[in-house]
Amino acid sequence: MTLPNLDAAFSALADPTRRGILVRLAKGEASVMELAKPFEMTQPAISQHLKVLEDAGLVARRVDGTKRPRRLAKAGIEAMDQWLAMLRKALEKNYDRLDEVLAGMERPTIKTTTKTMRGENR
Amino acid sequence: MTLPNLDAAFSALADPTRRGILVRLAKGEASVMELAKPFEMTQPAISQHLKVLEDAGLVARRVDGTKRPRRLAKAGIEAMDQWLAMLRKALEKNYDRLDEVLAGMERPTIKTTTKTMRGENR
Repeated sequence: MTLPNLDAAFSALADPTRRGILVRLAKGEASVMELAKPFEMTQPAISQHLKVLEDAGLVARRVDGTKRPRRLAKAGIEAMDQWLAMLRKALEKNYDRLDEVLAGMERPTIKTTTKTMRGENR
Repeated sequence: MTLPNLDAAFSALADPTRRGILVRLAKGEASVMELAKPFEMTQPAISQHLKVLEDAGLVARRVDGTKRPRRLAKAGIEAMDQWLAMLRKALEKNYDRLDEVLAGMERPTIKTTTKTMRGENR
């Protein structure tokens, strides 16, 4: 796939084994056998998870003789990362705005309301 | 929920309407009616999507008289963001390492292989 599909990408991350595979690949390229080892899973089971990650554009494979080492696929991971960065920036901006509001405030009742809002977010 | 559940959080993002709701909330707090408007969906349908986002710890609600305005829930979004940041950093590090390898290389055959790897990632 060329265009990152956010539906498939986020759906692929909703599984702890698949997130574990990505954490392993973050350390560098690995074979299916190396990927299967820490999970106590059969190679076909791991291959199935790898297929989901490849179809979602998060993992790529390279041909090396009879081996097919897998690695992280930059484009797909960046697409998700950029989408989430947008939410993160929005949260930072909202909190800056809240700080401005607080700085201009004096009535304690309003302060209490704002405190409760912050508390819920912990 | 207090502890962010990454399975539920990433699963919640695997739907374009739910991502759209988060984009709208990134602009600030909104009522269910305001959230339903741009999607041409009924309020019950939007409420169902909101429930998924709330259960996943990505959206929080506030009590304001009879209204229940929704907003982004910082903790859940930060948890996903931090998990992805780990992958992003790994990709940056791998590319730095690749640059170092390239800098120390002279044989064109190896350069071609590396070029192909980069090309696949576009």
